[in-house]
Amino acid sequence: MGNFQVRTDLALEARESIAEGTCTLRGVRVEESYREAEDIRVTKVVIETKNAAKTMGKPMGVYITMEAPALVEPDEGYHREISEAFAEELLGLVPDAGRELSVLVVGLGNRDVTADSLGPQVVDHLLITRHVVREFGKKAYNCSRMNQVSSLEPGVMAKTGMETAEILKGVVSQACPDLLIVVDALAARSTKRLNRTIQISNTGIQPGSGVGNHRNALTEEELGVPVIAVGVPTVVDAGTIVGDALKKWMDDETDNKFDARLAFAELNNMYMTGKDIDAVIKRVSFTLSEGINIAMEKNNVVCDTE
Amino acid sequence: MGNFQVRTDLALEARESIAEGTCTLRGVRVEESYREAEDIRVTKVVIETKNAAKTMGKPMGVYITMEAPALVEPDEGYHREISEAFAEELLGLVPDAGRELSVLVVGLGNRDVTADSLGPQVVDHLLITRHVVREFGKKAYNCSRMNQVSSLEPGVMAKTGMETAEILKGVVSQACPDLLIVVDALAARSTKRLNRTIQISNTGIQPGSGVGNHRNALTEEELGVPVIAVGVPTVVDAGTIVGDALKKWMDDETDNKFDARLAFAELNNMYMTGKDIDAVIKRVSFTLSEGINIAMEKNNVVCDTE
Amino acid sequence: MGNFQVRTDLALEARESIAEGTCTLRGVRVEESYREAEDIRVTKVVIETKNAAKTMGKPMGVYITMEAPALVEPDEGYHREISEAFAEELLGLVPDAGRELSVLVVGLGNRDVTADSLGPQVVDHLLITRHVVREFGKKAYNCSRMNQVSSLEPGVMAKTGMETAEILKGVVSQACPDLLIVVDALAARSTKRLNRTIQISNTGIQPGSGVGNHRNALTEEELGVPVIAVGVPTVVDAGTIVGDALKKWMDDETDNKFDARLAFAELNNMYMTGKDIDAVIKRVSFTLSEGINIAMEKNNVVCDTE
Amino acid sequence: MGNFQVRTDLALEARESIAEGTCTLRGVRVEESYREAEDIRVTKVVIETKNAAKTMGKPMGVYITMEAPALVEPDEGYHREISEAFAEELLGLVPDAGRELSVLVVGLGNRDVTADSLGPQVVDHLLITRHVVREFGKKAYNCSRMNQVSSLEPGVMAKTGMETAEILKGVVSQACPDLLIVVDALAARSTKRLNRTIQISNTGIQPGSGVGNHRNALTEEELGVPVIAVGVPTVVDAGTIVGDALKKWMDDETDNKFDARLAFAELNNMYMTGKDIDAVIKRVSFTLSEGINIAMEKNNVVCDTE
Repeated sequence: MGNFQVRTDLALEARESIAEGTCTLRGVRVEESYREAEDIRVTKVVIETKNAAKTMGKPMGVYITMEAPALVEPDEGYHREISEAFAEELLGLVPDAGRELSVLVVGLGNRDVTADSLGPQVVDHLLITRHVVREFGKKAYNCSRMNQVSSLEPGVMAKTGMETAEILKGVVSQACPDLLIVVDALAARSTKRLNRTIQISNTGIQPGSGVGNHRNALTEEELGVPVIAVGVPTVVDAGTIVGDALKKWMDDETDNKFDARLAFAELNNMYMTGKDIDAVIKRVSFTLSEGINIAMEKNNVVCDTE
Repeated sequence: MGNFQVRTDLALEARESIAEGTCTLRGVRVEESYREAEDIRVTKVVIETKNAAKTMGKPMGVYITMEAPALVEPDEGYHREISEAFAEELLGLVPDAGRELSVLVVGLGNRDVTADSLGPQVVDHLLITRHVVREFGKKAYNCSRMNQVSSLEPGVMAKTGMETAEILKGVVSQACPDLLIVVDALAARSTKRLNRTIQISNTGIQPGSGVGNHRNALTEEELGVPVIAVGVPTVVDAGTIVGDALKKWMDDETDNKFDARLAFAELNNMYMTGKDIDAVIKRVSFTLSEGINIAMEKNNVVCDTE
Repeated sequence: MGNFQVRTDLALEARESIAEGTCTLRGVRVEESYREAEDIRVTKVVIETKNAAKTMGKPMGVYITMEAPALVEPDEGYHREISEAFAEELLGLVPDAGRELSVLVVGLGNRDVTADSLGPQVVDHLLITRHVVREFGKKAYNCSRMNQVSSLEPGVMAKTGMETAEILKGVVSQACPDLLIVVDALAARSTKRLNRTIQISNTGIQPGSGVGNHRNALTEEELGVPVIAVGVPTVVDAGTIVGDALKKWMDDETDNKFDARLAFAELNNMYMTGKDIDAVIKRVSFTLSEGINIAMEKNNVVCDTE
Repeated sequence: MGNFQVRTDLALEARESIAEGTCTLRGVRVEESYREAEDIRVTKVVIETKNAAKTMGKPMGVYITMEAPALVEPDEGYHREISEAFAEELLGLVPDAGRELSVLVVGLGNRDVTADSLGPQVVDHLLITRHVVREFGKKAYNCSRMNQVSSLEPGVMAKTGMETAEILKGVVSQACPDLLIVVDALAARSTKRLNRTIQISNTGIQPGSGVGNHRNALTEEELGVPVIAVGVPTVVDAGTIVGDALKKWMDDETDNKFDARLAFAELNNMYMTGKDIDAVIKRVSFTLSEGINIAMEKNNVVCDTE
């Protein structure tokens, strides 16, 4: 592949792309499993060394990819079974799961650009409890143990004039959550993963990834609290897909070598997405919201229920 | 070009594409002019014969293309000078301009998909007068002559279960306008025309064009009243751009021939657009709204103003 | 009550208001029942004679009121049990229930005014099938019997310049549904019924009711097909509530008589609503959508399901 | 007036209400002027002593009220002349006006409740420059002096679980603006000031005011930077208007005295607004946005323009 820049936010794709010619990649551990009941393929990529991080172009940490073909299919309401599986995988990455937590869920992206509105739409459906617990106590919910959930939609730099990291650093310093969950629309390399793949990682988010590139580092190092990143690829980078298509065709048909990125300068700042993206985002965001709600409820909440 | 299907809603591009190897196209008359004050290049393509219509893949009629580079640039508020030029060209296509008209402006497209929301956003800013004139008379506006402007956002078939043509046929039969202006987001073949080109034609709209293909024929023949179509290309068909890029590269570098559409089946139902599409649509839709408002005001309205 | 105009869209309130001093009202039959499982009180008011219709200020027909206190309380997602009860009552008013139907659901109101956006938000969540059945047949759903569901959001007269009745008459004449279900936000007389009461009637909708008064008669007589009206009171008319409050206070404390409407001319064109109206509308509209989806599925749909 | 709580965010109304029986109020200076060209009445209320602040129920500082009847009337686009007058008054309250400033404009309120969406809609139309100046320098705008404008829509506590003050304190500590401008929808006591009155004050915002009460103290004392509050009354508190109406009627007709608030417990948490509130908010927010844009441009920006 030479210097060809892999434009993907998915660790899974980064690994595939790099591992094409090689059997294994030192410092990268991969575990695959299959949740039969829900038809979800789960791949856990663990980047364990600095060298591997450099090769992969992604920081050290755990990346869980859930491939759920059902996610693109309409369901009555939404996919409860995917929400539950997602909640389980999410909790697996929460440090200190099992104690009461104050969790700030951040919806990244631009609400006014459909393909980039996943984050804002996810926070729309969360069960927010922090202000109630702080004002009225856990008794307001008839609970003896209860998490505090808050949320923020920071907006994009073109509209705020501020880096997302500036905003989050400030808010975290005041609201003092134990954990951040940041949700964002991602770019995939291949159309076949669009809208049906959920990536969860404990590395936070690096500058330059995502649909609108709307942030610099949102990481524990930068923000001072653990950051779990949740994303679903909703777009494909236009230059990448053209390059990939062209490369595939040429490998089959010709002997030529070329740098696809050079050929398609006009595609910079463009992305490709499906024509039914509004319905897809609505459904997927609801599935993620419910998953986060379920995870928060499972995380050692103890309540009286009649 | 062989059988390669030109996926463009712009008559200008269709002609360029066909005329590449030929000097003139029989039955197609082209007039070019340049509005220096506003830096707008106006091309009028008149398809005069059935044969030419067949070759161009577009019905007989007049197609005006205004290329206004300023349209993509932010301005204080919006581009008043482009609105005025557009109003003038629009009025030039109105049959019986100069008499009082009842005009129904239709905003096609899906409000929830940013790149497809041009039509709905245009109708948001129109000055609607029909109900006032009918209930209180022209005196409500201190006018002795006054058009009746109404608007409709019919929605897309995936949400309504009905063809746009069914809805419009019904509404036209009840509301009896003299003229329809239908506004829609278009697909261009080249990224260089995105968001800076306005096409106006007196042919209405044929099935299969537009971003979401959300209608069958919206024409005078079908609806019983003249139909002026107004559009701005906001997306590029993904398969087309890949095909074009590939073809260009191959013409330069190789001797191969291929059918690009076959190669990229995965790109069906996908489109490509810019990352700042929300800001662009907001600005362009306001410019078009104001243009329609200006045209309606100029169309022989006679009012007392202090 | 003298000439005091009862400003309410609820037949239940109209009857209470009129029946205050009397035991029974000739020509009005009232049946009450209580659905214990769901804690829903159902009142069926049947206006059987022209005289009774005149006294009540509402046309002859059946008015079902479901009072569901749970509707105002947040639930995980929404209230499935209320949706199912609503579906049952709704089907009870469908003429010819049990045969395949083409049903057009109309979302009345103004999406941009929160308290008036119930109708538009209800149609957002419907399962639309008409276009699929017509293009691909019932087999697309693996069904041998299947309704055709379509929807329309006609907009309000201030934005369209057209009466809602004009638009619907036209669309019905083209799309030829067997039944219309029109959904609208209502005005109640008392705050205690706000957002927790569903009214279903087989009389359609008369001019002058609803939050924005955005229609003239939407009735079988006018439109040519049966019309079921579904509404939830989301606002209280400002003049009415002031008048009622004042009257109550004076009846207790003074001997004065007065016409409250005269006193509060400044309240015309104003309405009163709750501060959490956005969350309420979101939840209630989803409950209604699901109810309509369930009703459509129960209405003699025969499908293969694995 | 006894203990009757004046529910108004307008200093003008507070003063009127208190000053009804008295000629002057010690410690409160009032200057009135009339801008004839724009038909705007400007009242400057300066609360100069702690005692006066206590009597008025508002902190010491300057409150400018612009009464602009034209604000409720539709205009082509918006009211440029009101924007310019507003810009002038706003600049008059800016400390250190005339030097380059970094200004953070905060849009308070709930975008999903029409009457409360003024703040969010104002920030939608601002010219945001901070990120550009910081990344590319003032040369990006061909300017040798240039303000840095940023914006934030913090959301409401029911959705974020955080106090607005927590969020702003954090963001201010990171982004370090010189000045905050906070924009919010206000509650008036009288319907006659709705939507046509702009209040500007240099006191920031106190807890408990505004449509949704969505903040605690947003003041220089709390946030560390000067805070200018801008508001337009879009609602009337329901309990207040009923009480006022009742009081007026009784003063004329009866000898009774009563506490209106007690009588109308059911009106708590309700507000009253006009039926065309969506169109009003759209127009007013645009007028305010442009005013802020004009003020920022006038504030000692030095640019080359051809």
